[in-house]
Amino acid sequence: MDAPTVQPAAEHQVTVYYEDTDALGVVYYANYLRYLERGRSELFADGPAGIARLNQRGILVAVYAVNLKFLAPARLGDLCTVRTRTKGGSAYRIKLDQQIWRDDLQLVAADVDLVCVDRNFELQEFPEDVLERFGIDA
Amino acid sequence: MDAPTVQPAAEHQVTVYYEDTDALGVVYYANYLRYLERGRSELFADGPAGIARLNQRGILVAVYAVNLKFLAPARLGDLCTVRTRTKGGSAYRIKLDQQIWRDDLQLVAADVDLVCVDRNFELQEFPEDVLERFGIDA
Amino acid sequence: MDAPTVQPAAEHQVTVYYEDTDALGVVYYANYLRYLERGRSELFADGPAGIARLNQRGILVAVYAVNLKFLAPARLGDLCTVRTRTKGGSAYRIKLDQQIWRDDLQLVAADVDLVCVDRNFELQEFPEDVLERFGIDA
Amino acid sequence: MDAPTVQPAAEHQVTVYYEDTDALGVVYYANYLRYLERGRSELFADGPAGIARLNQRGILVAVYAVNLKFLAPARLGDLCTVRTRTKGGSAYRIKLDQQIWRDDLQLVAADVDLVCVDRNFELQEFPEDVLERFGIDA
Repeated sequence: MDAPTVQPAAEHQVTVYYEDTDALGVVYYANYLRYLERGRSELFADGPAGIARLNQRGILVAVYAVNLKFLAPARLGDLCTVRTRTKGGSAYRIKLDQQIWRDDLQLVAADVDLVCVDRNFELQEFPEDVLERFGIDA
Repeated sequence: MDAPTVQPAAEHQVTVYYEDTDALGVVYYANYLRYLERGRSELFADGPAGIARLNQRGILVAVYAVNLKFLAPARLGDLCTVRTRTKGGSAYRIKLDQQIWRDDLQLVAADVDLVCVDRNFELQEFPEDVLERFGIDA
Repeated sequence: MDAPTVQPAAEHQVTVYYEDTDALGVVYYANYLRYLERGRSELFADGPAGIARLNQRGILVAVYAVNLKFLAPARLGDLCTVRTRTKGGSAYRIKLDQQIWRDDLQLVAADVDLVCVDRNFELQEFPEDVLERFGIDA
Repeated sequence: MDAPTVQPAAEHQVTVYYEDTDALGVVYYANYLRYLERGRSELFADGPAGIARLNQRGILVAVYAVNLKFLAPARLGDLCTVRTRTKGGSAYRIKLDQQIWRDDLQLVAADVDLVCVDRNFELQEFPEDVLERFGIDA
């Protein structure tokens, strides 16, 4: 997951505020997952507003698995970049490579698997428009 | 709002974790509102599970107004007590006095007004069982 | 605090993500305080990075009091505007009027009092550069 | 990671509040990492207060890697149990198995690697008292 091979499908800028940090003076580990979600949202048509419309159609996108490595800390006032690209998937699984960088230093490496569920959180296929958006043939 | 006059209707213990703190080494100001909500939940029958059942009845309890004073900071590992008492109200408004203490030091003073709304967030009367629970004649 | 009289000293755009919402389908009340802090940060030279440099000088800016009214809810995908203006103050207190709007609907009204403390959270005067920045004669 | 083989070194009870949930009506994925941290804290002498004292000694415990699977959602009012056990490690790495359960249903499976860093976030050995506490020979 080294920089040269990164082919971001979406880049999202995040500024670190107090809300993100903890008493160690760095971003609290769980909050990087909030950054990753903001970055992922860029891959959906019209971002979080588009995701809200998917929900109204009974299409809920949920994270099934996350593998995270915390390589370096971010601090108050840092400007970070969340880079997200689709690694592949199927009608039932979208696999993402997500990275968080500050300038040329990688802070976080994440593999994220998304699934599609209905309002009862039962697994269902992703709709075609979402799969096309992510460049997945199903 | 000095200690001797406090007549808590409910007390709730909170431990400060990293998640609650920020880069200044103290609890982040917004997170005290999470503590206040945990403390308030004790006033409802069966706590947050009871609140979830109210929601299923189309009864949503929302905060309309909060007046907060931050008197002293809490730090990682502190054990705090949230004291909540009903100050009065009506069928349309429940007024609470909430305080957060560490030992004999008051950290936060809060006046909280709750309202009842339906699923469209339109104002409605609190149901009788809730008003009785809070000791309000309506 | 009605719209026509608003003279924003700073405007900050916020997008609502899942992280901000709760099970009622709207932004969780404490999270509006995160939005307010993001908006306030714009008033400081160089934003949160400038605030971090103030901290390194032993100058900590803390919220002493907040009076909040929650007028209407924000939902997933909403684009909100945080409007912040200085209402006045002294060497020991900066008073802000903060509002959160979605289009022409006001969602939140907030009066925020800031104080300056040292690393031991003892009250101290705001430094001149901060007071000048906020247009306060002291 | 099936229930019968679980040998928890620590169990921690968590109640789900609004603050933990999102607009899908379930606990927001990043917030399970807050629950995991609360559960992990039980393994340290005197919990988060003991962790604060480690920090004062210049001993910072950081998460280096997390592998998470989200198996089932938790909802408002749910009472969850965080089960944490040490899987092994060295002077430079403590490996934990953490699970979140509601009754007999597993909600989250997590492998967590902890490292020890100094105030500059440079890697250092865990102190002997911590290694002993976790039952690691080094």
